[in-house]
Amino acid sequence: MEGRRTGYVNGFHAASNTNGFHGSDTAGKVINCKAAVVWGPGEPFVIEEVQVDPPQKMEVRIKIHFTSICHTDLSAWLGQNESQQAFPRILGHEASGVVESVGEGVEDLKVGDHVVPIFNGECGSCSHCMCEQTNLCVKFRVDPFKSVMTGDGQSRFWIASRDGGERRPVYHFLNVSSFAEYTVVDSACAVRVQPAAPLHKMCLLSCCISTGIGAVWNTANVQEGAKVAIFGLGAVGLAVAEGARLRGASQIIGVDINPEKMLKGKEMGVTDFINPTDCKKPVNEVIKEMTIGGVDFSFECAGNLDVLRDAFTSTHDGWGLTVVLGIHPTPRLLPLHPMELFDGRRIVGCVFGDFKGKSQLPDFVEKYMKGDATYKLNLDGFITHELPFDKINDALKLLQQGKSLRCLLHV
Amino acid sequence: MEGRRTGYVNGFHAASNTNGFHGSDTAGKVINCKAAVVWGPGEPFVIEEVQVDPPQKMEVRIKIHFTSICHTDLSAWLGQNESQQAFPRILGHEASGVVESVGEGVEDLKVGDHVVPIFNGECGSCSHCMCEQTNLCVKFRVDPFKSVMTGDGQSRFWIASRDGGERRPVYHFLNVSSFAEYTVVDSACAVRVQPAAPLHKMCLLSCCISTGIGAVWNTANVQEGAKVAIFGLGAVGLAVAEGARLRGASQIIGVDINPEKMLKGKEMGVTDFINPTDCKKPVNEVIKEMTIGGVDFSFECAGNLDVLRDAFTSTHDGWGLTVVLGIHPTPRLLPLHPMELFDGRRIVGCVFGDFKGKSQLPDFVEKYMKGDATYKLNLDGFITHELPFDKINDALKLLQQGKSLRCLLHV
Ligand SMILES: [Zn+2]
Ligand SMILES: [Zn+2]
Ligand SMILES: [Zn+2]
Ligand SMILES: [Zn+2]
Repeated sequence: MEGRRTGYVNGFHAASNTNGFHGSDTAGKVINCKAAVVWGPGEPFVIEEVQVDPPQKMEVRIKIHFTSICHTDLSAWLGQNESQQAFPRILGHEASGVVESVGEGVEDLKVGDHVVPIFNGECGSCSHCMCEQTNLCVKFRVDPFKSVMTGDGQSRFWIASRDGGERRPVYHFLNVSSFAEYTVVDSACAVRVQPAAPLHKMCLLSCCISTGIGAVWNTANVQEGAKVAIFGLGAVGLAVAEGARLRGASQIIGVDINPEKMLKGKEMGVTDFINPTDCKKPVNEVIKEMTIGGVDFSFECAGNLDVLRDAFTSTHDGWGLTVVLGIHPTPRLLPLHPMELFDGRRIVGCVFGDFKGKSQLPDFVEKYMKGDATYKLNLDGFITHELPFDKINDALKLLQQGKSLRCLLHV
Repeated sequence: MEGRRTGYVNGFHAASNTNGFHGSDTAGKVINCKAAVVWGPGEPFVIEEVQVDPPQKMEVRIKIHFTSICHTDLSAWLGQNESQQAFPRILGHEASGVVESVGEGVEDLKVGDHVVPIFNGECGSCSHCMCEQTNLCVKFRVDPFKSVMTGDGQSRFWIASRDGGERRPVYHFLNVSSFAEYTVVDSACAVRVQPAAPLHKMCLLSCCISTGIGAVWNTANVQEGAKVAIFGLGAVGLAVAEGARLRGASQIIGVDINPEKMLKGKEMGVTDFINPTDCKKPVNEVIKEMTIGGVDFSFECAGNLDVLRDAFTSTHDGWGLTVVLGIHPTPRLLPLHPMELFDGRRIVGCVFGDFKGKSQLPDFVEKYMKGDATYKLNLDGFITHELPFDKINDALKLLQQGKSLRCLLHV
C-alpha cells in the first residue's frame, strides 16, 4: 500500500511535469515560425522567419490564434518617443492563443490552456499586487521602454542577420509581442480563460475592452443615471460607452471629429453625438448646456491635451471626474491651472481599466459567458474587419484611417 | 379655551420675532463701530469708524469677539490678483463671536448664539448642498472675487468719504469680513457652536483647523499606520499634522525652509523634519528613501508650484494622493506631465477641509468638548500670540515673518 501510494504521488508529479515542460512536441525546443517584424520607425511590417526560444523560468510560450492592432502599437511603430525605439521589433499586445509550453516553476498555466496575454501583468506577490488600490505590478506593469524579458534581460526572438552575419535578437514589446505565430511572455502576463470562450472575442479583452470597461466599472465606478462624456470614439472609447450603457448611465455623449463614428457609437450606447468641428461654441459649453452643468464623468480616449482640457472642463463642478485613457507622447504639461482643482473637479489616469488581470479577468469572462445581464457586452460589434495575418499592413492602414475599430488578424 | 390657545400661539410667534428681529437694543439699527480698513493694495490697516447696516433677509449681524489673520487675507491685502482688488475693504475671515441680531427668515440662529463664521458657506438646499460629494454651495461657496452681499449685491459697511463728500461703501471679503467689531454675514455662513466652547479657540475652526484637519479626515481619509508628508508648516500645515497624529499615522514628515518650524512641528505630531535648503538631493528622493517608496499622502500647504510638484512626486506610485491646500495666484499651469497620471498618483484640491460647515462643524465641536479621544486637538498650540484688535498691523507682520502661527486679536 505504502509503495503504491508513493507510486501514485510520483506519477502525479510526472504527469504534472509532462503537462508543464514536455507536454508538446516542440516543448523545450526552439520554434521556427513567422512574425511581422518592424525594422525601423514607420517602416512597413515585414513577415519574416524568426526563431522563438523556449520559455525560461516562470515564462510561457503561446501559440497566437488571433491578434489586432491598437493605437499603442501605432505609437511605438512610429517611434514617437525616441527612447522607446528598439528595432528590429515584434509589436502587438492585443491577442489570444493557446499555451504551447511552460517554463520552470509555472504552476497556474499548462499546455493547451486558452490564454489572453496582458501588457500590464500581475505577479501576485509584490507590494503592489498585494495592495487593493493599484494594478501596477512592480515587476510586470506596463512599460513602453522595456524591450527584453524581465527574468534575464534577454530576448526570446532571433532573426537571421540581413548581412549574412550572426543571428541577431528581435526586441519584445509591452510584455506581449503578439505579431508572431509564437511568442514568449512571463506567466504573470498570461490570463487563463475558459476553453468555451471564443478565442476571437477574447482577443479584445487583451486591451481595448478591459481598458474601456474597467475605466467605467473600476476607476470611475459609474452608477445608474450618471451622465457621461467620451472624447474619442475608437475601440477604447466605444468600450467605455458599452460599460456606461451596461451600468445604466442616463446620458452617454460621444465626441469625435470623425462623423462616421456617430452610427457605430449609437449602436454601442452613445445617446448624443458631438462633432467639435460642427460646434459654434467650445465643446465644454455645449456639453454643460446639454447636461445642465456638466457630466458626472468624462473619459479622455483621444491622446490629445486640448481634448483632455475639454474633457476636464465638461464635467460638473463639485464632483466631476475625468479619467485619462489616451496616451500623450508630448512634451507639453497638463493644461490645467492649480486653482481649477478647487472647483471640485478631479482627474485620474487609468491603466488597463484598473483590472488586476490574472485575478479579475477570469471572473469577467465567466460572467460574460453565462450571459449575466450586467455583462451583456456587444463584443462582435468591435470586430469590424478580419484579415489573414500576412495582411497586417492593410490592417494598420484601416486603423490609421479611422475605418476600423478592430481588424482581427487570423494568425 | 379656543381664545387662550390662539393667544398662546400668537405669543409664541411674538417671542420668536423678538428673539429674531428685535432681540437686542441695536437690532434693526445701524451700528457705529470700529473696523480695520484697507484703502489700497499693501497699505497698512487703518482703524476707522464705520457704519454697519442691519442684517437683511437671511443674514445675521455678529459681534466679533476674536479674529486672526490667515494667508488668504494676506494675498487679498497685497492685491496679488488684480481682478480681486476692491478697496476700501474689510478683510478677515477667521473669527468667532455672538449673534447681535438676525434678518428676516433666519430660523436656525438667534440673538446671543455663539457662532463661527465660515468663508465657504452652506445654504443647505442647493444642488451642491444636497450632494454628499461636495461642500461647494452654489450660492455661498468661497469666492475671492466677491465683495458684496449675495442677496442684494450691496455692502453693509459704510465709511465717511475722506474728501467730505457722501459716505461710501466698504467692500466685504470672503463671505465674512471679520476685522471689525460688528459684521454682517449670510446665515449660510455662520455656524452655531455650543456656548460652553471657548470662543477664543473656536476662532481657529473658522479656517485653519477645519481646513487642515478636514483635509486629513475627509479628503484624504488617512488611516492608522499611513505615511504622510506636509509641505509648509504654517497653521494649516500643522493642523494637517494634528489630524494625521490623531488618525494614528506612522510617519508624519514636515517640510519647511524655516528651521524654526521644526520645534513647533514636533509638538504637533511631526515625526521627521526636512529643510529643503539643507538637502543635497531633491526632496522627493529624500522622502522616498525615508519611506521606502514614498508617502501615502502628501499635503501641499505652501502655495508654490515647485513645492506642489515635490509633494506630488514624494508620494508612492500606485496609490499616492496629493491634497492641494495652498493658494496659487500664479499664471503657471500645473507642473505635471499627463503621462505621470498613469503611475497611479492622484492629486485633488480641498476647500475648507471638505467640511459642510453648518451641518458638520457643530458635531466636531461637541466631540472636541466631550474630550473624545480622536478629537483631542491641541488648539492652544496654534495660538502663539495675542494682541488687542488695534495692533492688527503688528499681527500682520508676525505672520509675514513666519513668527506666529496665529496671533489672536481681541476685538
Ligand atoms: Zn492597446
Ligand atoms: Zn506584482
Ligand atoms: Zn483662511
Ligand atoms: Zn448650497
